[in-house]
Formats: sequence, C-alpha cells, structure tokens
Amino acid sequence: MTLILALDFGGTKLAAAVVNSGSPEWLRYERRLSPVNANANTDLDIMRSLIDSLLQGEKPAAIGVSFGGPVDASTGTVRLSHHVAGWENIPLKQLLEDEFSVPVSVDNDANVAALGEYRFGAGAGHDSLFYITISTGVGGGWILNGQPWRGVGGMAGEIGHMVVDPAGPLCLCGKRGCVERLASGPYMAKNAREGLENQPHTGEILRGLVGNNLELITGKVVSEAAAQGDELALDVLAKSAWALGVGIGNVANLINPQLFILGGSVTKAGDNWWDVVQKVARETALPEIDFAVVPAALGDDAPLWGAVALAELGF
Amino acid sequence: MTLILALDFGGTKLAAAVVNSGSPEWLRYERRLSPVNANANTDLDIMRSLIDSLLQGEKPAAIGVSFGGPVDASTGTVRLSHHVAGWENIPLKQLLEDEFSVPVSVDNDANVAALGEYRFGAGAGHDSLFYITISTGVGGGWILNGQPWRGVGGMAGEIGHMVVDPAGPLCLCGKRGCVERLASGPYMAKNAREGLENQPHTGEILRGLVGNNLELITGKVVSEAAAQGDELALDVLAKSAWALGVGIGNVANLINPQLFILGGSVTKAGDNWWDVVQKVARETALPEIDFAVVPAALGDDAPLWGAVALAELGF
Repeated sequence: MTLILALDFGGTKLAAAVVNSGSPEWLRYERRLSPVNANANTDLDIMRSLIDSLLQGEKPAAIGVSFGGPVDASTGTVRLSHHVAGWENIPLKQLLEDEFSVPVSVDNDANVAALGEYRFGAGAGHDSLFYITISTGVGGGWILNGQPWRGVGGMAGEIGHMVVDPAGPLCLCGKRGCVERLASGPYMAKNAREGLENQPHTGEILRGLVGNNLELITGKVVSEAAAQGDELALDVLAKSAWALGVGIGNVANLINPQLFILGGSVTKAGDNWWDVVQKVARETALPEIDFAVVPAALGDDAPLWGAVALAELGF
Repeated sequence: MTLILALDFGGTKLAAAVVNSGSPEWLRYERRLSPVNANANTDLDIMRSLIDSLLQGEKPAAIGVSFGGPVDASTGTVRLSHHVAGWENIPLKQLLEDEFSVPVSVDNDANVAALGEYRFGAGAGHDSLFYITISTGVGGGWILNGQPWRGVGGMAGEIGHMVVDPAGPLCLCGKRGCVERLASGPYMAKNAREGLENQPHTGEILRGLVGNNLELITGKVVSEAAAQGDELALDVLAKSAWALGVGIGNVANLINPQLFILGGSVTKAGDNWWDVVQKVARETALPEIDFAVVPAALGDDAPLWGAVALAELGF
C-alpha cells in the first residue's frame, strides 16, 4: 500500500488527509480554520500538527499540496497569499521535502482542483477540460491532453479577468466588465446593494431577507432572493451567469476542450443560473464546437483530491 | 538529402514548393491563382500540374499540406472550403498518399502557419505561442509545448469569434462585437462605409481616395486614409486594434503563452494600429503575465513553410 499525504492551504482553512493510493476514501482527515491573525508560520505550525496526527508515525510515499494563491509550480515556491501574510517567496516544496524526505509537488488551488476533478471527479474519462471555480473570486485550471497546462509563467487559467463587457462596472484589477466583476459572489452582492440603493422601490424580497441591512447581503442571499422571485436579485444573478457563459463560450472557441467543470459556492445558485450559463455559453461558441458544462463532483475536497493526484503523478 | 513537398490550397491561390530538409531556401516554387469557377477537382488538377513541374520525376520523403478551411487533422480530411465548392469531406491526405506513396500531413492554414512561424519564423526559440492572422477573417493557431494544439474537435484557435463588445455591431456568426467583426479588413471597410454614410461631413481624405465611390473602400484604403490623418479612418482602425488587443489580453490571461505572432494584410496597417494593439493587450492582461506581440516573419509563405514543418514532424 502506498500512503499519500494531501495538504490544502486554503486561505481561511487548513485541511490535510492521508489515503492509500487507489482507495476512494480518506484513511484519515483533519481540518482547522486559520486563526484571525494567521501568518505563514502559524499556518505551517497548524499544518504540522495536522500532519503528525494523520501520519501516526508512518511515512508517506509522496506529498501533494494545494495552495490558495499563486505558486511557481516548477519550483514549488509560493509567490504570495492574498489572505495570509508572510507567504511571499516561501519555498514550500523544499521546506516539506527537507522535513519529510519524500517527493513533494505544490500547485495553486485552481490547478490542483482541476486535476482532482479530472482524476477522481466530474472530469473522469475526459482528456482536455477547463475547471472554473466561481466563489469569492473566479479562477480556472487547465487539463490538456491529460496534463496540467499552467502557462509559461504559471499564470494560465485567469478566466476571471477576461473582459466580457467593456462598458461594465470597474473591477479591482482596473478593467471594466471582467467575468469576476460580474460573476463572483462578493461582486454579485455589491451589484445587488447598488441596485437597491439606486432603485428604492425594488428588491422587496431581498431587503426582507437581510432586515433592510444591505451590508448583510452576500452572493448566497442574492441567490435565495432570486429563488423566491425577487426581480432585482434575478437580474443580478442573470448578469453573473451571462458573464460566465460568454467567458466559457469564448474559451470553447479558443481552446476547444471537451468539458467545462464548474465548482465554487456560486454554482449552488440554482437552476436558473445554470440554465443561463449553458444557454449563453452555447450561443457564444461557434456551432461546430462541441462541449459540455457540468458541475464539479468533489465539492470542498477537490483541492485535497487534486493534491493526491499531484503527488501520484509527480507533476 | 531529404526532399520535402509543401502544398498550399489557399482559397484564391494555389502554391507548392520543394525544399531539401534543413535548407532555408526553396529548391523550386510554383504558384497559380484559382480560376473564378474553381471547384475541388480543378484545384486538385492545378496542384497536380504544379507538383509535376516541381518534382521533375523525383520522389519526396514526405508531403505537408496547408488547407484554407476547416480540416480534421487527425484523418487529414477536409471538412469544407468557404471559398471553393466541392471540398466537403474530401479525404485529402488519403488521396495524396495513394497517389504519391509517401506520408502526408494535412491541417488548416492557421495551424500550419503557426507551425511555420514557430519553426522558421518569428516564433523560433519559443515553445508556446499563438499565431493570429488578421486579414479577410481573423483566425489563430496554437503551439503549446512545441506541439500544435488543435482542440478536441480540431476547432481551437477561433479568436475571431471571441466576443469583446456585446453592444457592438452584428457579426456574420450571429453574435455582436466579435474580434473579427471589428478587426478584419472587410469589416473595417464596412464600418468605414457606414460611418461615411451616417456622417456626410467626415472622412474627406477617405472619400477622396476612392473618388467618392464608397464601394471601393477596402481595409487597405482605410489604412491609407488613416496614415494621411483621416479621422474617421483613424477611428475605424483604432477600433480594429482595440478589439484585437482585448482578444490578445484575454488569451494571455487564459493560456499564458510567451508570444503572440500577428500576420495577415491588416498587420500592414501601420504603427498606429500596432501601438494600440500592444497597449490594449498589455492593459487587458493581468500585470503579472508577461508576453510579447510581434509581427510574423514569413509573410505569404508561412503556410508553405508550415507545411514543410508539418511534413518533417509528421503531426
């Protein structure tokens, strides 16, 4: 039996698991929230304690790591974390290899989740796919011909900053109408708040759900209001789905993968959202281009399962 | 010495050449315009006569073919030509292999030109690049990790039908604001004509260049008028360059190649056009993503040189 150790540095949570290679179930699994003042050292200390508890003195054959931020996968060095201080240029692969004396592979969470879904989830049986997470942000990871495609600088997959509406609202990146600016949870919440402020007689259901405290609106609340028929929420949700659909159609035209797998909290927004995504993606792609758009299968465990695949494949 | 035969079925012209593998110069080269009522059979007959004249009784080691239209590269079967009748489902690879008893490789012109620029042109020394032709249409071809990436259905590279302005003018494909709808030569001409019709007091230089016969406006005429300072022409050209720049920046975010190579008649539009393409591409890509945008080096011979590479590499 080959023991694999999988680690997920998630930004707000830390998770780790061990599995016997080939088994569909975790042997042991541990998970902790990052403390409020987390930094790279506290994250690493917490992860060490999880690992001790998981390994119980055994030695894994390999370690795979998913990191919630940009990583140079060729060296396994973290570039930075957008959530936790002190991760700049930490040589995570080197550090873990020195500590455990086994091969370690490290990549960012979107690439790792793509690999997880490819090997163990919704992508099984497909060689070329694009995994997209739509959550706090919008990011993606490629599998082309059964291999991760990371781009020459490790930056591929940034569908979140594809411009789909140059007349759209301003994104944090400085451009207008990026997919992320329209489709992500926090930006959906912002769009809904602005709509309610500008149109005082709309969004009754949405206002009711947060007791008129617009600061409490989240992407999830927008989805709930839409499910109850709130028109403003339906509009915001449709715009999110439209932006993602255009992005997917554009990607289909450019790369022609077999499959798009969508994961992340916003994909739980309901049938309405999915219908618009599917319809707009189909309309945006050329008629000759075939593809399917399906939900992710592994949920929150996609990075951990992807880390298993990363460790097994060693790339 | 290994003799390679390269063929280019270009839609309006037919070209063929032989080269000794490794040589930077054609041994012999032939070129004919397609007749007005060309069909697949007349094209094939003309090509056979060019080949006879080129080979002079010698037998090539391999044949590479560039075809101006969609091709199933895995079987070497032409799907159709948008310019010449009768090409539907012609098994071009099979046909030439039967006739010449040597290995034949066939792919569409954008993919083949990408391979040509990669091996012999502006892409030399780069492993991952996107070649874009901006001419009558806008199309592209991928080299990823030194290999053509054709997509699972052979349809990758269609940057021409990426939507960059959903409020833009209607494209032949049915969508609004595709890159091709704004950036291609014929559509630039159309945009200029419409501008002149709607604003009778603009475009004096442009009107002068065609003696007030707006039907004579082409993409090239628009470029000439812009070079002479015509404001309407400058606007049309800037919009073309803007659309292409957004497309390039979006692709950089998605795939992160090292290099974009631009070929085709519109790339001769002048420094102004190039400056806008570069600037908008840089603004659209995330700051962390590095890439260069350079002109193609092989000109009209890119498909033939690509056909040589295709024959040599056999993929």
